[in-house]
Amino acid sequence: MSLLDDLADVGRAPGGGYARHGFDRAEAEMRDWFREQAGRRGLDVETDRNGNLWAWWGTPGPDALVTGSHLDSVPGGGAFDGPLGVISALEAVSRMDRPARPFAVIVFTEEEGGRFGVPCLGSRLLTGALAPDRARALRDADGVTLAEAAASAGVDPVHIGRDEEALSRIGTFVELHVEQGRGLDVPVGVGSTVIEHGRWRFSFMGEGNHAGTTVLGDRHDPMLPAAETVLATRRIASTVDARATVGRLVPHPGGTNVIPSTVDLWLDARGHSRDVVAELTGVAERAAAAEGCTLTVTEESYSGTVTFDPTLRDRLTDLLGAPELPTGAGHDAAVLAAHAPTAMLYVRNPTGISHAPEEFAEDTDIEAGVVALTRVLESLSR
Amino acid sequence: MSLLDDLADVGRAPGGGYARHGFDRAEAEMRDWFREQAGRRGLDVETDRNGNLWAWWGTPGPDALVTGSHLDSVPGGGAFDGPLGVISALEAVSRMDRPARPFAVIVFTEEEGGRFGVPCLGSRLLTGALAPDRARALRDADGVTLAEAAASAGVDPVHIGRDEEALSRIGTFVELHVEQGRGLDVPVGVGSTVIEHGRWRFSFMGEGNHAGTTVLGDRHDPMLPAAETVLATRRIASTVDARATVGRLVPHPGGTNVIPSTVDLWLDARGHSRDVVAELTGVAERAAAAEGCTLTVTEESYSGTVTFDPTLRDRLTDLLGAPELPTGAGHDAAVLAAHAPTAMLYVRNPTGISHAPEEFAEDTDIEAGVVALTRVLESLSR
Repeated sequence: MSLLDDLADVGRAPGGGYARHGFDRAEAEMRDWFREQAGRRGLDVETDRNGNLWAWWGTPGPDALVTGSHLDSVPGGGAFDGPLGVISALEAVSRMDRPARPFAVIVFTEEEGGRFGVPCLGSRLLTGALAPDRARALRDADGVTLAEAAASAGVDPVHIGRDEEALSRIGTFVELHVEQGRGLDVPVGVGSTVIEHGRWRFSFMGEGNHAGTTVLGDRHDPMLPAAETVLATRRIASTVDARATVGRLVPHPGGTNVIPSTVDLWLDARGHSRDVVAELTGVAERAAAAEGCTLTVTEESYSGTVTFDPTLRDRLTDLLGAPELPTGAGHDAAVLAAHAPTAMLYVRNPTGISHAPEEFAEDTDIEAGVVALTRVLESLSR
Repeated sequence: MSLLDDLADVGRAPGGGYARHGFDRAEAEMRDWFREQAGRRGLDVETDRNGNLWAWWGTPGPDALVTGSHLDSVPGGGAFDGPLGVISALEAVSRMDRPARPFAVIVFTEEEGGRFGVPCLGSRLLTGALAPDRARALRDADGVTLAEAAASAGVDPVHIGRDEEALSRIGTFVELHVEQGRGLDVPVGVGSTVIEHGRWRFSFMGEGNHAGTTVLGDRHDPMLPAAETVLATRRIASTVDARATVGRLVPHPGGTNVIPSTVDLWLDARGHSRDVVAELTGVAERAAAAEGCTLTVTEESYSGTVTFDPTLRDRLTDLLGAPELPTGAGHDAAVLAAHAPTAMLYVRNPTGISHAPEEFAEDTDIEAGVVALTRVLESLSR
């Protein structure tokens, strides 16, 4: 699809895939592109207090029909996760008559949490699910606070947080997204539930020292309990039927000839996630103690299971003749579901690979997704 | 000591300690300071083809008496490892009469390998122990090649490599260094041996994917065999009486909600290091295969056991009434030992901690070190 082609070269990561993160240069370029595309379709773009973009077709809300997704990526992410929902929304606008009810295309800020660690940052701030004080203090890997990054991108950090006016305008929200597993054997499906999930930071503290001169018996090396924790993550997840992952692990200071003083690792757990964390914390504490290290565990985000509005779901499955499917992936739609009737459409992913450069959807399935979204929006506009 | 105080604020790392690396801004500032201090003492500073600084007292070589150390640090390193040898050499010059034989204070480039991975970079290039083609292609964590970094620091990468003229000038080399274990119960000791050591990169390749949607059975997560390898490192080292460390481990792309596509870890092994690597490679290969991942192991550097010149050692222990001690730490002196009579003096470290912000030496021991180095240099000058 030509709109996706427009973005093919924006924010390419050196190691493959994309690096487009909240308030960074690549995201800014994506947003400029969105403003231009929205303008071509006669939409008026506003930025809300949390940096989310709203492209209004006519006068803003209330009881607006809102559709959209996000433009940021995970580190090294694929081309479809996020942008597919935004370009499909723009394409639907091109194909629709002007709706009778207020209508907006939305782009959420930092959905992936790739820079500041908290996923669905824009929708969590908008709905008040994330406290503004906590958000302002979040830091990226270079130590830049969210407050600093937002300010440098023209979003005043003083005013972030729950936005009653913006929130009250949303009458119905529909997000189209690439499927992220192999849950579809037809081009398009309708979302049923999002499984509960969260992120926890495990920080192991030991004693930094010289890798050559420190005899084994004198060591307090936090890399050892961190490694035990990685292995236990898989073991525990398999016993409680959860999905649990350690994709980020950072030893400090990270020199080859240096015993680290600390190791931070981040646990992503979904489905029975708190059972995983409880059992894993015990394993990690024992492993830390055995090496003379200490441990702190911090919950960085948590979202309970979300069931999308049953009435809206039935309407969409009837309209499209499409199957329902659950997902293990979090979405802004799941955050908004507590505030307005919300639905998701998924577009088939032939390999199921996502959050990786190999993420893919066939052109014919993308077209089917646009057709489906257009039908849904037309139906909901009446 | 006031000369160390001069450097206290140069290249401080955000997480504590120092970040002073080959051809970076902090190292450049250190080198400017060295040029100024050498100039004050009437020394003429030359930069050799590999970026090492030589401060000559009078006419350069042959059969010169050379002393010095390095000014770079490990990531998050202490204040003494490297700079202590340089400031002690400058202080000795202030206290000595001009020697009868040619005399120089040397500062070696990137001794720690903190940026480009290969330790003793300056002395290895000077002596030809590291091939210039391999050196030019080394990359730092940001992907910058050594060739690019050297050029930006004014060192022409075309001309790096074995420097016959510079090497032939060294008649005797003496390096003073902070002790990096707890091997001294007197202020100053004389080096006997440096145990063999090397660095190996273990690269595990799996399949990047979404942390929420990918069921456990579909995963090829390279973090798991990497964690198994970390645990096996300690187990194997303890059985063969080696020292082995994983202080650097980098998952790619490193997102919390992303199963990594690759994980690189670096093994630092000393004493029976090749036994460790052989056994560890077997463990790592089996763990990788069990997860459907693959492994490559690359030797990044290796140095055999070095025994310092026995005649010179005897002379120094007699002169100083000081004990001999071995070390597990690598040094430029150990690289030069294959080319000229070479000796090391160590200054007591009360805690034994090194390569960490807590690295320390008492002022009285530092003064004893300067006195000892001055006596040694005066004796060897005659």
